[in-house]
Amino acid sequence: MKSSLHRLFARRAEFGALSTKSFRAYSHRQTLQTPLSGAQSISFVKPLFSAVFIAGFVSAVWTHSHSTVHAEAPPAKTIRLAEVRKHGANATRRWVVKSTKVYDITDWIPNHPGGEVILRAVGGVIDPYWEIFTIHNKKDVYDILEQYYVGDLDPRDLVDGRVPSDDIEDPFKNDPARHPDLIVHSDRPFNAETAPEDLKSYITPNSNFYIRHHLWVPFLSQDDYKIQIELPDGEEVEYSIKDLKSKFRSTKVTCTLQCSGNRRQHMNDEARSTSGLPWEIGAISNAVWTGVRLRDVLADAGFDIDTFDEDQTKHVQFQGAEAYGASIPIDKALGKREDVLLVYEMNGEPLPRDHGYPLRALVPGHVAARSVKWLKRITLSDEESQSQWQQRDYKCFGPNQGGQDVDWSSAPAIQEMPVQSAITSLRNASPRSAEDQKLLRVYGMEEDAVEVEGYAFAGGGRRIVRVDISPDDGRTWHQAELLPDEAHGSKSWAWTRWRWLVPKRLAGRQFVVKAVDEGYNVQPESYEPHYNFRGNLTSGWHRVPYTKGRRDSKE
Amino acid sequence: MKSSLHRLFARRAEFGALSTKSFRAYSHRQTLQTPLSGAQSISFVKPLFSAVFIAGFVSAVWTHSHSTVHAEAPPAKTIRLAEVRKHGANATRRWVVKSTKVYDITDWIPNHPGGEVILRAVGGVIDPYWEIFTIHNKKDVYDILEQYYVGDLDPRDLVDGRVPSDDIEDPFKNDPARHPDLIVHSDRPFNAETAPEDLKSYITPNSNFYIRHHLWVPFLSQDDYKIQIELPDGEEVEYSIKDLKSKFRSTKVTCTLQCSGNRRQHMNDEARSTSGLPWEIGAISNAVWTGVRLRDVLADAGFDIDTFDEDQTKHVQFQGAEAYGASIPIDKALGKREDVLLVYEMNGEPLPRDHGYPLRALVPGHVAARSVKWLKRITLSDEESQSQWQQRDYKCFGPNQGGQDVDWSSAPAIQEMPVQSAITSLRNASPRSAEDQKLLRVYGMEEDAVEVEGYAFAGGGRRIVRVDISPDDGRTWHQAELLPDEAHGSKSWAWTRWRWLVPKRLAGRQFVVKAVDEGYNVQPESYEPHYNFRGNLTSGWHRVPYTKGRRDSKE
Repeated sequence: MKSSLHRLFARRAEFGALSTKSFRAYSHRQTLQTPLSGAQSISFVKPLFSAVFIAGFVSAVWTHSHSTVHAEAPPAKTIRLAEVRKHGANATRRWVVKSTKVYDITDWIPNHPGGEVILRAVGGVIDPYWEIFTIHNKKDVYDILEQYYVGDLDPRDLVDGRVPSDDIEDPFKNDPARHPDLIVHSDRPFNAETAPEDLKSYITPNSNFYIRHHLWVPFLSQDDYKIQIELPDGEEVEYSIKDLKSKFRSTKVTCTLQCSGNRRQHMNDEARSTSGLPWEIGAISNAVWTGVRLRDVLADAGFDIDTFDEDQTKHVQFQGAEAYGASIPIDKALGKREDVLLVYEMNGEPLPRDHGYPLRALVPGHVAARSVKWLKRITLSDEESQSQWQQRDYKCFGPNQGGQDVDWSSAPAIQEMPVQSAITSLRNASPRSAEDQKLLRVYGMEEDAVEVEGYAFAGGGRRIVRVDISPDDGRTWHQAELLPDEAHGSKSWAWTRWRWLVPKRLAGRQFVVKAVDEGYNVQPESYEPHYNFRGNLTSGWHRVPYTKGRRDSKE
Repeated sequence: MKSSLHRLFARRAEFGALSTKSFRAYSHRQTLQTPLSGAQSISFVKPLFSAVFIAGFVSAVWTHSHSTVHAEAPPAKTIRLAEVRKHGANATRRWVVKSTKVYDITDWIPNHPGGEVILRAVGGVIDPYWEIFTIHNKKDVYDILEQYYVGDLDPRDLVDGRVPSDDIEDPFKNDPARHPDLIVHSDRPFNAETAPEDLKSYITPNSNFYIRHHLWVPFLSQDDYKIQIELPDGEEVEYSIKDLKSKFRSTKVTCTLQCSGNRRQHMNDEARSTSGLPWEIGAISNAVWTGVRLRDVLADAGFDIDTFDEDQTKHVQFQGAEAYGASIPIDKALGKREDVLLVYEMNGEPLPRDHGYPLRALVPGHVAARSVKWLKRITLSDEESQSQWQQRDYKCFGPNQGGQDVDWSSAPAIQEMPVQSAITSLRNASPRSAEDQKLLRVYGMEEDAVEVEGYAFAGGGRRIVRVDISPDDGRTWHQAELLPDEAHGSKSWAWTRWRWLVPKRLAGRQFVVKAVDEGYNVQPESYEPHYNFRGNLTSGWHRVPYTKGRRDSKE
């Protein structure tokens, strides 16, 4: 029973991209087939979070079917905002304000496909959340809400007919302050890439590590924090941070995280426009992470990591405290050399709030979207996470496939990433500068040169074995020097920094880089043949224009 | 001591591509530093095989330094060929004939860098072997040989001043008969690819499976065959085929083998000429292999597969009975889901002689050159196989890097392969044919169409997730249907067969295919930027010209 209901809700969670018309027809059909009481559904609704916020791409949906009830016109009861405040998450009856009307949504909450994230809004104004979860802005959802109408806000609490903004909770009010050098793509939720000059160091400082949030930053305390683990038989086990630190051997892994949208702007520029944030080369950073091995924790929790039933347990689902969710294959989670961690330290400091304090998953070699932050719950399951971020956003399709009619299930969720590289700086080096002279000597040169630097990285722990640099748009090639580093970890989870000096007389109008990993995978030359409408995993050769005249240049 | 001497010989084995001049200077230097007696070196010379035969690319080298000794002119002793025959591999003194002269090379044999393969030639004429191992054709080697001169062949055994060919052993005399449909690239050693029509079945019949030999086919019997395993501490353990079958659980794996030179001819055509056999699309085939897990055998032999010393054991070296050798990383050999086997059956039949009878290694997801045939010896070591096929031939370099001055150690030996695909047939399908009508209906079509079929494959067990087909040289794309199959194995070790029907009106002058694996790795569009002088791992988009007029066409 649980499984089929679970699947039903999973299907419902896919409504995000359906038209209103088909949404209505579908929810009507589903209701006829499977009338669910709140009591029946509450147990499995909880882990279902399908809230989405990616540049207006949306999901949390209200699929409860109903006959439309319009508020008739009895004399409207007026309610003070202070009274609403009393009906918050801890109250028996939970109220929300939408615009100037008050609703008691207590009985609806168990049916909310977006899960318990709705509790953030109760006892206050729901409008700012509906601005994030824009899926709510349709008639069906308003119709549901109207069923729960209890009265109008007292005009004394309104200014110009609205609740003053001071009285509306900002979902992002607890977001931390950020470093001014980050290049911001969106403020709420916060998304910002690392500046090219901060991509030059092998280890990215915590403050400059790129940030990719789908929602707000949860305000959590390490002291009362518990991570819940749900085993295949439904049993649950909890660990505090203290438990994790005392019961398990800590492990350090040097690991690069890369957003699947890194370099999306190059896809926009070189092929066609895509949906999603227009990241340049900085949605990637590298850090030393400290934590405990997930496989050790699962074994301690009672999961038999050697002889479990492979049909029953295929995926490890991660649930974040804000509403985000994703999953990875069980083999990745259990592999001795796969280094999947529950992390509490980043570069020797407690995990910063922007990077998942107090605990996050770290899934080396996989797209960063699987390294769930503010990790609250781990579920061993026969199915992937049903979240939007597993079932939709982080997938790639063919260049001819569009967003409207695409069969989302036809492509696998991105896990490992293809080989990638980028030029992070391009600068003239002259033998007339004492500093540059030293550098030129290292490369056996005495003439004017162009110094090129950058990163190369591949998914799956595949080592970078060669970086080819062209100073003339691909006509001729040189092999860059792969800079030495000291990485922790069983495989090559971290990027390789590289450098090369090319005589200035050989420099053409454009420098190009392409890398090769140990599986001899290569980057594609162009963008259009690998276009995908979400702009994921852009890895075409990185080209940077060069002007001979300039003295010192950076991208 | 063993280790440094070993390394010295390893370096010597690299001389193959050095000029004669640098070879002389280097061997002189080495001799001054490390005078080796035969007795000292015999223990570690054995596993060193550097014999090479790839279209004239050569290696077995004589690096024993010496002062040149010219045979003075005493009256030449004449020796009958029958007398030479008595000085074979089992004799105390071992002789060879070179042209018409007889040499007693007994004292040289321990120094032979090519190892014991030289024993094949003793008691007979060495010329046909030197035709294979052409590295011998230089003055230094002749000078060494002259030291061991014992007399001239009796003129009664010569015809026109030469040993008649009937009296010269053909190294390939025991090679088996082959299927006439194989497309032969070289006879001795035998190299032949699978014809396009035989690439259409998911499982390739044994008789049509491509053959890639570096030397001759050893004539072995299953009954007295033993596989030797050398553990890190030097201990040796032996298993007969019967031992393997009775002691270990048999395992079936469906696995595609691909030569690293597959599609090399496309690199020759689309970029520049490379060295090596000009394989088209058929140096790849798929079979179900039965054998036992190498990890089980190693564990039984006394190797602690869970807690071994990772500095001491990094590689598993495979030695073939003919002289071929290669190695794989220890993690691949021990991985539970890596499915490395010792194989004795192919598609339900005893392993054919051309495919390694009675025992071969199977290393799924890796280039076929690591799946060593006629497997005689397995050595756990801190270093890779020092064979030419590990240290040289099977590597890739940058498009600018040439064969003369390349630093072979700068590139890793190919293990996993990148994503690959090819069109194996292209044919018109007409609604006027009853047969085609059925097919067209499956794809919901009623008009003239072009049926395209082919394979897609990726290394490392990475599943093929999408195949893009363009009927107009990359202007527009369609997604091919990935045909269902039933494969044995822990990962996707076998190719994916695919098919698509494109309306004939959309067909341009060239069809193109490109595939995507589950790590979202892609194939490069063109060839020149990925040119490597050995022509390895050619994986540019496969393009097949199409002529609208034709009725039924195949590549």
